[in-house]
Amino acid sequence: MKGRTILVIGGSSAGPAAAAKAKRVNPAAEVTLFEASETVSYGICEAPYAISGLIADEARLVSYTPERLREEKQIAVKTGHYAEKIVPAKKCVIVKDLKGGTTAEHAYTHLIVATGSSPRHLGLAGEKARNVFHISSREDTLGIIRYCSETSPSRAVIIGGGYIGMEMCEALVNKGLDVTLLHRHSLPMAGLEQETRETVFAELEAHGVHFVTNVSVESLHEDRGSVRHVATNRGSFEADIVILSLGVAPNVRLARGAKITLGATGAIHTDERQQTSIDGIYAAGDCCEVRNVITGKAMYLPLATHASRGAWVAGENAAGGRDVFKGAIRAMAVKVFDREFAQVGLSSAEARAAGFSVVTDTITAYAKVGIMPGSGKTTIVSIFDKNSTKLLGANVFGGEGSVLRANTLGVAIQHGLTADEISRLDLIYAPPFAPLWDPILVAANQAKKKVK
Amino acid sequence: MKGRTILVIGGSSAGPAAAAKAKRVNPAAEVTLFEASETVSYGICEAPYAISGLIADEARLVSYTPERLREEKQIAVKTGHYAEKIVPAKKCVIVKDLKGGTTAEHAYTHLIVATGSSPRHLGLAGEKARNVFHISSREDTLGIIRYCSETSPSRAVIIGGGYIGMEMCEALVNKGLDVTLLHRHSLPMAGLEQETRETVFAELEAHGVHFVTNVSVESLHEDRGSVRHVATNRGSFEADIVILSLGVAPNVRLARGAKITLGATGAIHTDERQQTSIDGIYAAGDCCEVRNVITGKAMYLPLATHASRGAWVAGENAAGGRDVFKGAIRAMAVKVFDREFAQVGLSSAEARAAGFSVVTDTITAYAKVGIMPGSGKTTIVSIFDKNSTKLLGANVFGGEGSVLRANTLGVAIQHGLTADEISRLDLIYAPPFAPLWDPILVAANQAKKKVK
Repeated sequence: MKGRTILVIGGSSAGPAAAAKAKRVNPAAEVTLFEASETVSYGICEAPYAISGLIADEARLVSYTPERLREEKQIAVKTGHYAEKIVPAKKCVIVKDLKGGTTAEHAYTHLIVATGSSPRHLGLAGEKARNVFHISSREDTLGIIRYCSETSPSRAVIIGGGYIGMEMCEALVNKGLDVTLLHRHSLPMAGLEQETRETVFAELEAHGVHFVTNVSVESLHEDRGSVRHVATNRGSFEADIVILSLGVAPNVRLARGAKITLGATGAIHTDERQQTSIDGIYAAGDCCEVRNVITGKAMYLPLATHASRGAWVAGENAAGGRDVFKGAIRAMAVKVFDREFAQVGLSSAEARAAGFSVVTDTITAYAKVGIMPGSGKTTIVSIFDKNSTKLLGANVFGGEGSVLRANTLGVAIQHGLTADEISRLDLIYAPPFAPLWDPILVAANQAKKKVK
Repeated sequence: MKGRTILVIGGSSAGPAAAAKAKRVNPAAEVTLFEASETVSYGICEAPYAISGLIADEARLVSYTPERLREEKQIAVKTGHYAEKIVPAKKCVIVKDLKGGTTAEHAYTHLIVATGSSPRHLGLAGEKARNVFHISSREDTLGIIRYCSETSPSRAVIIGGGYIGMEMCEALVNKGLDVTLLHRHSLPMAGLEQETRETVFAELEAHGVHFVTNVSVESLHEDRGSVRHVATNRGSFEADIVILSLGVAPNVRLARGAKITLGATGAIHTDERQQTSIDGIYAAGDCCEVRNVITGKAMYLPLATHASRGAWVAGENAAGGRDVFKGAIRAMAVKVFDREFAQVGLSSAEARAAGFSVVTDTITAYAKVGIMPGSGKTTIVSIFDKNSTKLLGANVFGGEGSVLRANTLGVAIQHGLTADEISRLDLIYAPPFAPLWDPILVAANQAKKKVK
């Protein structure tokens, strides 16, 4: 355990978590973290809420400053340091000090690659205009907040109708902007089931979002440094501000250069100890694949939950401990105005692609006792395997409690519960919180008839 | 299946559910239900909310009238019919028509006993005074509502600090009454853990409830038909209205008379088909024991959830089908003013009594991302078995989402998940709903260190 020199590349989320874990596990280890920007430990998932103003002080998204990481976690944090190359044969990383302009070799005994992901681009001119933003860094968040306060934009065009697109619709509508959402499909949120997507669509429309379907963006018309309208196959849309939410791709330049094996997903492949194909080099976070415990196959699903778990395991193992990250089911949720939307496990399309004999079923039921004031309804789309009768996935949406009910179904998925077993779950009945037959039980009771 | 004559005794909750299920499974069966009162299918669990006025129309607590049960479910419902005796040797029930005054023998091929429970009494004079009420029937609910509207009481004394006592405190405080709660222990809610009970106590105090501890009620002083003060070992308390919430006891007079085996709990013992010790006689609801799936032993826990499950199974089997109720873990919740309190599984005392090597651990964590406005905290007291490292029980309390998180832990308990397995659950992170590390994961991560 002694004499370990652990380098961590990347300071966004997985990097600091892995570094802190390594130091905790092995206080004698030297742990150094390189980050090209000046920000570490940034809560990018909260960015839409800082942009909307719901979180009044954006600085609170910084959970650790470099100084605090140094002082409280004893990590040598080097911001403004760009890792140019990993040289496994020499067990070193070549790092450029962006301020000093110098480049140096840093030796390691163990390396953690946490290079994260980058937002996907349109590949069009105008994408670097001053009023075009991604949602992927503190610079983006601050840029949008500053731009809005300086120019008071009235028309926003959001390109991309996934999770971040939804959150940004809500954020900008709440900020008083007129919002147009351009999406390449006929419904938002491609990974969700048809009825879920239709409900998301209805919720957007009900709150005045102009949802334009089947859009292919053709050009961004720039005028004096700003994009003024977005030209598409479905017409041209005027914009004072443009948000790009097109998803992300793993940052694998360094890994590829070091001949670290990438998976079929294009992200870094690791074993369950988070070790890459090269001994002593670990990886965690958005640059990595994650094992889907339902299919047993790798998926690329860059979520903070996976990043944190992978980071803890990478940090632990790099420091000489022993831990594993066995994988995930996918557990995601988004608030779209007045409704909750959650997805756990496989989609029906993924389940079919994975070779399951898919049965889907949809129920809508009261989430509290129906006669209690303010009682809303929850819809559950459940996806079962007809052969094993196990639950493979679910969409849960509607009023309050939909997301937390999705977690309960998530446990059922992760532990292979059948429709019959789910129907026998002993769930709480209490008028202010849940009806005699919780929506989960209603769903399982109905699905049971279909799968057996 | 043909020619079945199914009699059901009891119309409160389990009886109608069992009868409806039997008819659904076997439409050729003749199904007759006897109920001594004039009310069937009454939502007594919602009574505190009708009393407080939150549910404005008390009639909505009646989910089925006798007429609707007859018409929609094809059950011959006989209210005002009191079952005097079960005669297994003759396969008949002797029933008295309370209005007609006649008594008749009713033959059955299959019998379902759903005689429910009765509220416990103090055994003191004055208990039948016009301003002393239990919370166990429609008559009680209507009596309280009527008494309050007619006399505008200002001082309520509630005797008994369990679940119903808590709900009645909230109901009567919300109705503007000055509420004194007399309880025989030093803290309310005897089945919960120490810290949970202290929090309930603090919540009561914060809302002006006078909680009097270690009380032994000595007498109820009646004056012109009403109790005017309650004398105790801790002094005398003036009252305009008195609520007794002392728990319930199973109604087993009929069962005992028929020599149906009772369990050590005093309630009717059934197998997992809900059949009693006498072939062809089933039982369900508050008159029955329920198998605790954690200990494998019978418990007496009269909850509507068990009643409904047991009723479905009794109805199915009485009608010639085949179903089992494998048991329950205990899953309960109560709202006490601004906080949610939930219990799943065993208490630490029960776990010790059952021979487990008990480790308890308590965490308090944000239920949403901490920097989101309105983010409250949730406390989880978890009870693990040190040998198996399995979760045996939990108290979850605090702000919004505590109860639904308890359900997620309930699934873990019911399916024997260990601390390590719970720490590996893939739970949702989304700022408006849950933090990166859900309180459940925080609890498991901390407990893991204690149990291994």
